[in-house]
Amino acid sequence: MKYSEISIGMKDSLSKTFSEADIVMFAGVSLDVNPLHMNEEFAKTTVFGKRICHGMLSCGLISACLANKLPGAGTIYLGQEVKFTAPVFIGDTVTAELEIVEMRDDKHIIKLSTNCFNQDGKQVIAGTATVKLP
Amino acid sequence: MKYSEISIGMKDSLSKTFSEADIVMFAGVSLDVNPLHMNEEFAKTTVFGKRICHGMLSCGLISACLANKLPGAGTIYLGQEVKFTAPVFIGDTVTAELEIVEMRDDKHIIKLSTNCFNQDGKQVIAGTATVKLP
Amino acid sequence: MKYSEISIGMKDSLSKTFSEADIVMFAGVSLDVNPLHMNEEFAKTTVFGKRICHGMLSCGLISACLANKLPGAGTIYLGQEVKFTAPVFIGDTVTAELEIVEMRDDKHIIKLSTNCFNQDGKQVIAGTATVKLP
Amino acid sequence: MKYSEISIGMKDSLSKTFSEADIVMFAGVSLDVNPLHMNEEFAKTTVFGKRICHGMLSCGLISACLANKLPGAGTIYLGQEVKFTAPVFIGDTVTAELEIVEMRDDKHIIKLSTNCFNQDGKQVIAGTATVKLP
Repeated sequence: MKYSEISIGMKDSLSKTFSEADIVMFAGVSLDVNPLHMNEEFAKTTVFGKRICHGMLSCGLISACLANKLPGAGTIYLGQEVKFTAPVFIGDTVTAELEIVEMRDDKHIIKLSTNCFNQDGKQVIAGTATVKLP
Repeated sequence: MKYSEISIGMKDSLSKTFSEADIVMFAGVSLDVNPLHMNEEFAKTTVFGKRICHGMLSCGLISACLANKLPGAGTIYLGQEVKFTAPVFIGDTVTAELEIVEMRDDKHIIKLSTNCFNQDGKQVIAGTATVKLP
Repeated sequence: MKYSEISIGMKDSLSKTFSEADIVMFAGVSLDVNPLHMNEEFAKTTVFGKRICHGMLSCGLISACLANKLPGAGTIYLGQEVKFTAPVFIGDTVTAELEIVEMRDDKHIIKLSTNCFNQDGKQVIAGTATVKLP
Repeated sequence: MKYSEISIGMKDSLSKTFSEADIVMFAGVSLDVNPLHMNEEFAKTTVFGKRICHGMLSCGLISACLANKLPGAGTIYLGQEVKFTAPVFIGDTVTAELEIVEMRDDKHIIKLSTNCFNQDGKQVIAGTATVKLP
């Protein structure tokens, strides 16, 4: 999307089911082999009770929605803030919901709210992204 | 590490070379198929001149260093802020450098600076993480 | 193959080129994120001078040749001994060469030499496998 | 760890839950497409009754524990012997337990026992590894 086509309040979203395969592959890519993600027996002993997905998987979904949808092609990612507000378990379907909340016309910089929810509507990430368009 | 073993000023780091394989796998995991990452011909026409890695790959390295090293096993990830200060290209080796900067004893909550650098010492991410220990 | 079709001296082989993608995926599967495999800058400082593949990748090729070719379908893997005699670098093509060297008729147990070579004929693994057929 | 920090009797361990994703990815990496791992209907007709994990997955966990924990960074893998003493099924959590059992001071060569157990404490691998430190 071109900067001139963007306006405050525009929204878009992207959803994905996170599987064991995603966890294994992300472990290889990131080197994050936290037993909370990789070891079911360990996870049972924690407050979560079973394995959770890497938080960065949901962040990746935010990144995908920025790059592919809003504002889409040409997006340059400047920054991201996230709070992990609830765990995402293997098999959960996460939806990243983005909304344009600020625009800085002189620099073509855009701020979006980037919140993620699971299939039950529970918020798993609260955050904001800052991007730039050419 | 136990909370009682942590102190302000402690540091650790983790490095990884990011390959085309990482980009392809992360695209599959995250759905982020931005042509800036996936299409060399498109990337040539941008300000970067060639394909760049997903910013979330470097964030994953921060997550790995938190989970595996500082504070290590048991870490619960509460939040992350990042600014992407320079692009990471395919083949670059990124080092995530973490340092304990704040501790909140009543809740066992720890704040770390989380900065990433490429093999030439150029900063590619500036950020902070918030984690909790049991 | 049925046990009755096997005889001492029978040979077979299997080859594969090991890529960066194999290393990334095996890191996720195994949790082996040794910087010798994942970090080009670190690897430069070692006696190897560049990143090497996980030794277990070549062992996987031995396992594949046992399962798929000699003795093939039905193979039950009892044991494996390997010596890693030279490094395998990213991009190398490794050939696992198997030969039947011992047979124990009462238990249908078979011993094979399992040696691996790179594209220049240099031996990278010397070893033996023990398998059983139903 | 430095060679001087190692002593006989030191122990460490690493655990992982092996999923279908691990099997699929390892099949792709290794070429080991034994129907015992890949075909549930075939596996039902065998003595195991259901699909088992590649033995090399547990070996990979040994390799990871050597590289990441004991003796850790800098480890050069010289050799490995394993006996597969019981099957590992999909969903099992395997723990690799390592212990330093021999040291050869003139060459900085270390021998470790490398035994793997499932979540019920049943031994699935008995073995020894030989490694070298710089």
